[in-house]
Amino acid sequence: MDLIGHLINGQLNTDHTRTQPVYNPSTGEHSKNVAIASKTTVEHAIAAAEAAFPEWRDTPVIKRARVMFKFKELLEQNADQICALIGQEHGKIVHDAAGELQRGIENVEYACSAPEFLKGEFSKNVGPSIDSWSEFQPLGVVAGITPFNFPAMVPLWMFPMAIVCGNTFVLKPSEKDPSSTLFIAQLLKEAGLPDGVMNVVNGDKEAVDTLLYDKRVQAVSFVGSTAIAEYIYQTATSTGKRCQALGGAKNHAIVMPDADIDNVVSSLLGAAFGSSGERCMALSVAIAVGDEIADLMISKLSDAIRKLQYGAFSDKTNDFGPVITAQHKAKVVGYIDSAEQQGATIVVDGRNAAPQGYENGFYVGATLIDQVTPDMISYKEEIFGPVLQVMRVKTMQQAMDLIDNHEYGNGTCIYTRDGEAARYFSDHIKVGMVGINVPLPVPVAYHSFGGWKRSLFGDLYAYGPDGARFYTRRKTITQRWPTANVREGAQFSMPTLN
Amino acid sequence: MDLIGHLINGQLNTDHTRTQPVYNPSTGEHSKNVAIASKTTVEHAIAAAEAAFPEWRDTPVIKRARVMFKFKELLEQNADQICALIGQEHGKIVHDAAGELQRGIENVEYACSAPEFLKGEFSKNVGPSIDSWSEFQPLGVVAGITPFNFPAMVPLWMFPMAIVCGNTFVLKPSEKDPSSTLFIAQLLKEAGLPDGVMNVVNGDKEAVDTLLYDKRVQAVSFVGSTAIAEYIYQTATSTGKRCQALGGAKNHAIVMPDADIDNVVSSLLGAAFGSSGERCMALSVAIAVGDEIADLMISKLSDAIRKLQYGAFSDKTNDFGPVITAQHKAKVVGYIDSAEQQGATIVVDGRNAAPQGYENGFYVGATLIDQVTPDMISYKEEIFGPVLQVMRVKTMQQAMDLIDNHEYGNGTCIYTRDGEAARYFSDHIKVGMVGINVPLPVPVAYHSFGGWKRSLFGDLYAYGPDGARFYTRRKTITQRWPTANVREGAQFSMPTLN
Amino acid sequence: MDLIGHLINGQLNTDHTRTQPVYNPSTGEHSKNVAIASKTTVEHAIAAAEAAFPEWRDTPVIKRARVMFKFKELLEQNADQICALIGQEHGKIVHDAAGELQRGIENVEYACSAPEFLKGEFSKNVGPSIDSWSEFQPLGVVAGITPFNFPAMVPLWMFPMAIVCGNTFVLKPSEKDPSSTLFIAQLLKEAGLPDGVMNVVNGDKEAVDTLLYDKRVQAVSFVGSTAIAEYIYQTATSTGKRCQALGGAKNHAIVMPDADIDNVVSSLLGAAFGSSGERCMALSVAIAVGDEIADLMISKLSDAIRKLQYGAFSDKTNDFGPVITAQHKAKVVGYIDSAEQQGATIVVDGRNAAPQGYENGFYVGATLIDQVTPDMISYKEEIFGPVLQVMRVKTMQQAMDLIDNHEYGNGTCIYTRDGEAARYFSDHIKVGMVGINVPLPVPVAYHSFGGWKRSLFGDLYAYGPDGARFYTRRKTITQRWPTANVREGAQFSMPTLN
Amino acid sequence: MDLIGHLINGQLNTDHTRTQPVYNPSTGEHSKNVAIASKTTVEHAIAAAEAAFPEWRDTPVIKRARVMFKFKELLEQNADQICALIGQEHGKIVHDAAGELQRGIENVEYACSAPEFLKGEFSKNVGPSIDSWSEFQPLGVVAGITPFNFPAMVPLWMFPMAIVCGNTFVLKPSEKDPSSTLFIAQLLKEAGLPDGVMNVVNGDKEAVDTLLYDKRVQAVSFVGSTAIAEYIYQTATSTGKRCQALGGAKNHAIVMPDADIDNVVSSLLGAAFGSSGERCMALSVAIAVGDEIADLMISKLSDAIRKLQYGAFSDKTNDFGPVITAQHKAKVVGYIDSAEQQGATIVVDGRNAAPQGYENGFYVGATLIDQVTPDMISYKEEIFGPVLQVMRVKTMQQAMDLIDNHEYGNGTCIYTRDGEAARYFSDHIKVGMVGINVPLPVPVAYHSFGGWKRSLFGDLYAYGPDGARFYTRRKTITQRWPTANVREGAQFSMPTLN
Repeated sequence: MDLIGHLINGQLNTDHTRTQPVYNPSTGEHSKNVAIASKTTVEHAIAAAEAAFPEWRDTPVIKRARVMFKFKELLEQNADQICALIGQEHGKIVHDAAGELQRGIENVEYACSAPEFLKGEFSKNVGPSIDSWSEFQPLGVVAGITPFNFPAMVPLWMFPMAIVCGNTFVLKPSEKDPSSTLFIAQLLKEAGLPDGVMNVVNGDKEAVDTLLYDKRVQAVSFVGSTAIAEYIYQTATSTGKRCQALGGAKNHAIVMPDADIDNVVSSLLGAAFGSSGERCMALSVAIAVGDEIADLMISKLSDAIRKLQYGAFSDKTNDFGPVITAQHKAKVVGYIDSAEQQGATIVVDGRNAAPQGYENGFYVGATLIDQVTPDMISYKEEIFGPVLQVMRVKTMQQAMDLIDNHEYGNGTCIYTRDGEAARYFSDHIKVGMVGINVPLPVPVAYHSFGGWKRSLFGDLYAYGPDGARFYTRRKTITQRWPTANVREGAQFSMPTLN
Repeated sequence: MDLIGHLINGQLNTDHTRTQPVYNPSTGEHSKNVAIASKTTVEHAIAAAEAAFPEWRDTPVIKRARVMFKFKELLEQNADQICALIGQEHGKIVHDAAGELQRGIENVEYACSAPEFLKGEFSKNVGPSIDSWSEFQPLGVVAGITPFNFPAMVPLWMFPMAIVCGNTFVLKPSEKDPSSTLFIAQLLKEAGLPDGVMNVVNGDKEAVDTLLYDKRVQAVSFVGSTAIAEYIYQTATSTGKRCQALGGAKNHAIVMPDADIDNVVSSLLGAAFGSSGERCMALSVAIAVGDEIADLMISKLSDAIRKLQYGAFSDKTNDFGPVITAQHKAKVVGYIDSAEQQGATIVVDGRNAAPQGYENGFYVGATLIDQVTPDMISYKEEIFGPVLQVMRVKTMQQAMDLIDNHEYGNGTCIYTRDGEAARYFSDHIKVGMVGINVPLPVPVAYHSFGGWKRSLFGDLYAYGPDGARFYTRRKTITQRWPTANVREGAQFSMPTLN
Repeated sequence: MDLIGHLINGQLNTDHTRTQPVYNPSTGEHSKNVAIASKTTVEHAIAAAEAAFPEWRDTPVIKRARVMFKFKELLEQNADQICALIGQEHGKIVHDAAGELQRGIENVEYACSAPEFLKGEFSKNVGPSIDSWSEFQPLGVVAGITPFNFPAMVPLWMFPMAIVCGNTFVLKPSEKDPSSTLFIAQLLKEAGLPDGVMNVVNGDKEAVDTLLYDKRVQAVSFVGSTAIAEYIYQTATSTGKRCQALGGAKNHAIVMPDADIDNVVSSLLGAAFGSSGERCMALSVAIAVGDEIADLMISKLSDAIRKLQYGAFSDKTNDFGPVITAQHKAKVVGYIDSAEQQGATIVVDGRNAAPQGYENGFYVGATLIDQVTPDMISYKEEIFGPVLQVMRVKTMQQAMDLIDNHEYGNGTCIYTRDGEAARYFSDHIKVGMVGINVPLPVPVAYHSFGGWKRSLFGDLYAYGPDGARFYTRRKTITQRWPTANVREGAQFSMPTLN
Repeated sequence: MDLIGHLINGQLNTDHTRTQPVYNPSTGEHSKNVAIASKTTVEHAIAAAEAAFPEWRDTPVIKRARVMFKFKELLEQNADQICALIGQEHGKIVHDAAGELQRGIENVEYACSAPEFLKGEFSKNVGPSIDSWSEFQPLGVVAGITPFNFPAMVPLWMFPMAIVCGNTFVLKPSEKDPSSTLFIAQLLKEAGLPDGVMNVVNGDKEAVDTLLYDKRVQAVSFVGSTAIAEYIYQTATSTGKRCQALGGAKNHAIVMPDADIDNVVSSLLGAAFGSSGERCMALSVAIAVGDEIADLMISKLSDAIRKLQYGAFSDKTNDFGPVITAQHKAKVVGYIDSAEQQGATIVVDGRNAAPQGYENGFYVGATLIDQVTPDMISYKEEIFGPVLQVMRVKTMQQAMDLIDNHEYGNGTCIYTRDGEAARYFSDHIKVGMVGINVPLPVPVAYHSFGGWKRSLFGDLYAYGPDGARFYTRRKTITQRWPTANVREGAQFSMPTLN
């Protein structure tokens, strides 16, 4: 059985003290194993990154950017292979994997703008004949720790920006679906990246803690659940690192009475069920303002949901695939059960999902729940499955209060045609990423990704301009040249000749 | 005896459970007491700040900036009064206090640029008819905790930027010299700031911990010693706040063989002994490259140092004044003793300082020590007194290694006429603020202040552009209007008329 | 009779070869005369500006900004005096003059941000050990030529930005109402501006042509009518100067069927009749989409218009005052006549305006005209009087076509509640300044003012970020230090000692 | 014989009323002809560009950027072919052509940053609930007119930036060496650019004037001689277009007594003789400060120059090739003659150049002239040939005065090790592009190219940030939503239910 290993200093290896199974969620099969790095293996990766740093930091930024230009080409050329690897281990349908990869590539494209976004600020004459300017210098060795749900995209939020800024990188991807990540990292070498600048270690808490406690690591970027994000943030900051740790979410849409209902329905389908809802930006709660629009929406949504197809990743006609593991399937089903028990109405029930020929796969069908209330467990926690819950309120303010009172503040959306409602909402809502008639308001790569409240720990967001600031340290230089030594000397040396 | 109190919700009060003495360091007298706030008092201040937030955040930025325009006028009009308060409690000479205040006012001037530096980024057509933009929204209640050595300037690094960004503020200044800070804060009301936006509480660890643990406080800015900075940073980040904590320093100058020696000597005098060396940017170590320049520098410096005058804050002819307390005087003298014991040469000895008529003041005379080595306690630790230590090396690289190996990385300087040496130094040295022939390279207010290594905990620096980023939370809005409802509706409604 | 003169090199003088009358439009009296500068007088002003340039350019930017901080204070302290001078010579009511002055002061406030907006871009390692950065250096002597309708505001668009960027200035204000401009310029001296940096010459075409042809003048900013703007632009550019010349306007509002009609009516009143319509951003054409909204709007507008009060500038209860001259009154009345003759409906007729006690003043009453069509002279040309014309169309596209086909493209506005209509309009309309439910979309001082089509000649707009770019010349420096001379020399000189 | 034609609306055609010969300068052969476009042909190109504009402007910026990503790939893949075409018609050696192409590609790389550099500025709450933002919208049809000396690079300064900003383009390259330009333009189609967005017409003054006078053309970028640049600028601006017209140069280096002489000599060789000196940034005058450094430099330079090899473009061992035409050779030789006649010393004489086997080629050998004075014709005018002239002065100020008094102000350089001299020079010299020990200080693609004085007509420079500003028109939108219609409506509609 294949053993998925590490990439350290430009070399693949499978050092491990133990291994962990990797499944094909579409079939339920245990298909591969992954090597779990020991502390020593992770330290090798850190050492390789540290050794590669001095030369890489001194490489002109345009040359660093050109590695990213080439990397983009290679990602596009190898897209099918990458999407197949994602599908095999994560289960998302190939068209969804292609979408994920495309969003990842957009971060590589933005990294190509490094000569622009790394410019410092120059001030002439801050005092008489004194100039001052800032430089944004790389930090050194930077670590990334990434989740299973976007094995290509989330790593691509991190290392292209970190590397183009002049840092070297150690990535610990999810051990549940590591192959596509490892494959992508290998392309960097072909793109011209020197060995040691990018390293990948597969592992578990031991690897994570090694990264968190090693003094050579200067910064940590993390995406995952809020509990782990909080641990990562507190540990990394207590050991003197800078850290950005992105956690969980509960993303609500407000559906106003004047919403374009066809747009609501069609866009919610993708936002709620795409990738089986295993997205930190999944739109999992729709709050209808008034029963009239609620009833209409429920009616149209339930019709549409029943037409959704799910199944194996390789069949392009599927709308979505399995969830990541059998355990996770059980957890999602448990949330639906609890909602039912707490009084919600299961309008469309996806609990008994077993597509023909894939009965052992980890499937949950698209589920629509009405009459959800704030006290329900299924509302308070992040389900991370293909479950859309509907709440009913009477005023827009009630809808906004629900959102503002929730623990998470990642994304949100309002459906309306009214300029004033949209502006009031986007101004006041306590959420970091706001959509106006856009249910998945993931910022494009040239803006930055980050939630509010317990969805993000740290000052600076992922990728985009904030990514550049996160991966660099400001240095301010103040310069004065004391005497006109050579200038006047030249003059003094020849006075009689003039 | 005067009891210095708090400013909460626009009102002065002297709530306290206990008090602490405030001294006049020039005379050694116990001149006033300061009220030490209980947890309850601090919570009142936080509550006032929280109540003032919603209206202040919605105040147009230009109106917030205009409070700062007016505040600048008032600071200038009240400069003499402020400088006198600084001198009475801190001991720095009035011209030095005026310099401190001026640097503080520069931050108010920069805060007046808020309409410019708070601009978000707008992207048209991130997708077909989809626009996206960022807004930098205020955080809410923000706290500042500031040190004794700059009772006016350091608070002015913080609250003008925080407030102009739309936050409300609770400041806990140093309890050693709180009067000038409190006076300054009162001017804000006269400048038109609504009550509750700016609050001051005097206190000790109880006040600090209340600020660190209260959920309503969103961010903490701190300047002080490294040990406390680290505590503040770890505590604040563990309770979900953003934090920037600036700590100690050991700032070295490299004196190259081609340096303009007269500039070296005259500029080092101010940089080492100004404000009795009680500055986190004080230049406390001069590394001479080669014995020739070392000997010349020692000779010229010792002549110059012997001419320096120190004494009471109110006499403008003095170059510097006392240190802050009797305990601190003992500590500084102890460092000089230890250097002597560890083999250094005390070239000019300031230990027996007792200016006539001020024999009870907390004075240490300007001290020059030669032959300092890296193992000495006086080198490893921050002295924070009027002591300049000289080290001798043979190459520029050795000098740079000394600097890079020191725990702190706040400021540094090179004296040279040579462009290449300056550029190599500023590029590679692991220090956040670099001077080229400028021994106190404090960035101007429109750049940002921050050291590297254990001189700063956090991602973003104090004041300037980083200050604006620190005191705001990014919100990204993605907008699409789904149908041409009114636009086409207008057309459809009158087809027969056309 | 008072003779209004010039300000050259810090001195007032009344040099002239001829004079011109200045009127009080409220009463029709010839109240003062203005000295008309000869070529020689203008050349003196240019010479003064040129002489003052080298020292002013080298003055640190924060010191230049501080002159603006002080200037703002003085403008506020002298506001009543300035507004009275505006009223006496221009005729606008004191509250309107106060509004004008306030908009002008906002440009002074923005000029205080110069340390921020003048920052150049610094790039480290554009090649190995090669750095490159840009500096925005001042041009030298810059000229401004300004119109009668905003004697305070339009000059304040120009010289604060030009001067804070390090230029010196020669202003030729309108000879119709020069007193407030001259008064304002004098305050700069009190604000600390060195003599010669700011100069004012009153004059006519001879003065203008002297500025346009003099080789020492580096740039010209102009605001006035399109015919003159075009002449200024072609002449200035043909003599090697940079130039921005703002001309005429015909600003349309589209009133959609879903518009908030009360907002439409109340905001149109000010936008059409404020300052007697003598504003390049006056909203002079309202296009109703559909007869229903047209009829409603006409009905409400005509009621409201009849309640408007006009009269002498000094009576605060007046809504607007006279037009600038008897000739201009005749011209405005002529446009109303022509509209009537060409078939439009005069709904409210302001032609016979003669407020009691001010029968000789130059008054035109608020006029509302319905059924205006694109072929009418009153539509094709800029009226610059208190005349609002209404057009009726059936679709939004027809309204947009009218706007896009007009010669001018300064400002425009749409009244709607619908997000999609607003976004489509602002995206596609060929006009530089677009309002959404804002009839006078003058950009705030930290954005830039400029129209499209024949409303502006030049690349860069007035004030704001474009103003900074217009008043500076880019210099790009590329730096490489060839050998480690001193750095290695220091090393070589002492090898045996190590 | 090949007839080089046009690219209009995605199709090659050879429409012409007349043709003009194209030579192979290395051999002197008439190798091809070029079709000279009539007014009608140019108008077809403009019409194609205008038709393609609406769709291209609405294409999301990232999609426009992706055409540039692909275009970069194609330019790299076709580099040999492009360099061969350059060599055949221009004569520059293949390695020099490769350098030219590389600098051109860098502009394509920068164009890929468009999502970053096209961001507008967003201001929240410019008034209560009023927002304002700027958009940088494309102009429409833009024209470029480019010179023979960089047939690949100079067009690449223009059209990638113009096109990525959303404009459509008509390029008129030099008729002397049009093939490489045409080839490059064709690659854009393969890169995915829609037909009509990029068009190329070959022609002469008729084509130029058609572009200048056609109302549909919104802007013109020009690079060439100053006489033509001035004509282009005056004509284009008089017809209401924005224009940037880059003209001639006379670039001086100051060689200070402390210069690193080996760096001086080696870098001057390339800067003076590379591409036979046919570069607007060629370093054609070296001013030595003091006879000592002058004599040393002359001695070392003359030795080095005698080792330079010149000959046919295809031989990589050559340092430079022929000049562009027989006429141009005669002109260059004439300048050397005139210098000799006016008293200069011809140290190395390149007038009788006739490499074996290429006797009919248009060669001038590397020429070094000493004792040049400001009154000489060879000093006053731009030679545009492989001629380096040396002047001798006694002080740095004299050297700076020479530079400042020259008509042109494109590039300049100082050779020194001294920080103060370099800073004084770069601050005060009246030249747009300044090198410190860098003799060809061409700004990198992420900065902007532009000279001062009569080297550039226009406000905004070529490529980089200024290029983006030049190719876009600012639009400022101010938005207020008047009533909480839907928001409160939703509330009002259901009061009894709550």
